[in-house]
Amino acid sequence: MKQLTDLQVLISKAVDALKFPDSPAELYEPISYILDLGGKRLRPSLLLMACDLFGGDVDKAIEPALAIEVFHNFTLMHDDIMDKAPLRRGKKTVHEKWNANVAILSGDAMMVEANKLMMKVDDAILRRVMDVFNETATGVCEGQQIDMSFEQRNNVLIDEYLDMIRLKTAVLLGGTLKIGAIIGGASLNDAQLLYSFGVNLGIAFQLQDDILDVYGDPEKFGKQVGGDILSNKKTYLLIKALELARDEQADNLNSWLNLEQFDAAEKVLAVTAIYNQLDIRQYAEYAMQTYAEKAFDALDQINLSEDRRQYLRQFADSLLVREY
Amino acid sequence: MKQLTDLQVLISKAVDALKFPDSPAELYEPISYILDLGGKRLRPSLLLMACDLFGGDVDKAIEPALAIEVFHNFTLMHDDIMDKAPLRRGKKTVHEKWNANVAILSGDAMMVEANKLMMKVDDAILRRVMDVFNETATGVCEGQQIDMSFEQRNNVLIDEYLDMIRLKTAVLLGGTLKIGAIIGGASLNDAQLLYSFGVNLGIAFQLQDDILDVYGDPEKFGKQVGGDILSNKKTYLLIKALELARDEQADNLNSWLNLEQFDAAEKVLAVTAIYNQLDIRQYAEYAMQTYAEKAFDALDQINLSEDRRQYLRQFADSLLVREY
Repeated sequence: MKQLTDLQVLISKAVDALKFPDSPAELYEPISYILDLGGKRLRPSLLLMACDLFGGDVDKAIEPALAIEVFHNFTLMHDDIMDKAPLRRGKKTVHEKWNANVAILSGDAMMVEANKLMMKVDDAILRRVMDVFNETATGVCEGQQIDMSFEQRNNVLIDEYLDMIRLKTAVLLGGTLKIGAIIGGASLNDAQLLYSFGVNLGIAFQLQDDILDVYGDPEKFGKQVGGDILSNKKTYLLIKALELARDEQADNLNSWLNLEQFDAAEKVLAVTAIYNQLDIRQYAEYAMQTYAEKAFDALDQINLSEDRRQYLRQFADSLLVREY
Repeated sequence: MKQLTDLQVLISKAVDALKFPDSPAELYEPISYILDLGGKRLRPSLLLMACDLFGGDVDKAIEPALAIEVFHNFTLMHDDIMDKAPLRRGKKTVHEKWNANVAILSGDAMMVEANKLMMKVDDAILRRVMDVFNETATGVCEGQQIDMSFEQRNNVLIDEYLDMIRLKTAVLLGGTLKIGAIIGGASLNDAQLLYSFGVNLGIAFQLQDDILDVYGDPEKFGKQVGGDILSNKKTYLLIKALELARDEQADNLNSWLNLEQFDAAEKVLAVTAIYNQLDIRQYAEYAMQTYAEKAFDALDQINLSEDRRQYLRQFADSLLVREY
């Protein structure tokens, strides 16, 4: 079994070695630019890990793993235009550094490059791999659309929210693991179980992210605490609070949501106080735990030696147990 | 041999029957909307024709033909955002009817749908077909990028222009025919010759379009004569005129290009007069003829019965001999 950290080094080198044509420069430079912004390369590393788990040749999984990284960054490039985000990883986003047209078209070209990289699997598994990849891509687009539509809505249901995060972030984790498993020679059933592990883990991870935004230790979390509260982002916590709040509490919460001028610290404090009164943290942790258990249930059914299952369990624990 | 008009009816029905999920509505409605705007469905019909030419089962080519139509419309949806085009076929463009974010994301989803449709070929030809499709998609993105970059440049060379129209419009025609040929069971060599036929015919067709903009009969052409002149569009004619004009003629042409306020009819008349003095129409027709001949040369080498080659020749003639 290869260690995840070693696989991250391997894939980082492969990303660095990835070359695109020199011309037209405005099509390909933004692709290299966004890929060079770095990151943990967690998704492609997990594809390699999944391949390795089933005894597959990790070298054969590198190009498909790159496909996942290129695809993920394509979605970021387009999402950043839609969100009007000025920065990504502290650097200018592509549409800021160039312009929106460049970011649209480079993103399109990037998706084609991702497809080409994903095609580099053996003929025997080509259709299975591409079917998973295409389904994943559809899910990510649907999730992004649903997320955008939430901004215009004040009546989002918890189940709609869970479906959105499943599509927007979790299916990519599931699909990535499934593709790695297929390349590694896993059975249909085991590949599907690993998919289920990944999707449920992804949902749990996103719920944890929602919780950490409010209750995380700012030094360990690495983001501004309360960022979601300040932007009225429809997280699990806010949706649940809107569902449970009654009378004065509901008025109080809604007045904070509608206030255009406010002191940031005061708003974070006030909304957190409402969350506390409503036990929102407990609801969110319970939901997170439910999805983590679904992930572990799927994991327990995978036909792997106990030490390999243990390895996956530890990986899941390391993702989920971040300091509060 | 099936008639092209019959294949157009067949593919129009298939486009009408194409169904996408109901939800999320803002992701899938724009896809149905742009596909419903109609058109001659020439590209997908040509894919069917190419399959039929080599004795293939046209039914097996319908989904790949739809893939080409969906892909083409995806590029239109994104191009319309970049060009800030308000109308397409007399109806609001997607980014006008909804907004730019919807058009970006629906376009992305559409490309995934195109990939899924193209995957519906037999395993034995899956990789060959997808490789052609991906190369075509890369070409179209590169062509669009080069075309956009021309707007900021005043020193575009004729060869750069020819390369741009090859990528932006002709490789899709070539790739479409090649995929149809592969599905129809053509040899590697014949599929490649049909590709070459399509690419060269596509370039000739685009050059004809440039000529018709200035010298076409407005009733038969169906567009405003001189539209390219009014928008200073870098066509073969303008690039050649900028290359050949000297002294007073060059000053005159440049002053029309730089004039921000002008009478439309006067500008069309004046620029056309410069083109006439420089024999630009003859240059353009010669270039068009050169590419048409390259197309016919490739056609002559395809291993098909003479009546089938004749059918292709007539099709090419029908595309190229439009009334002036």
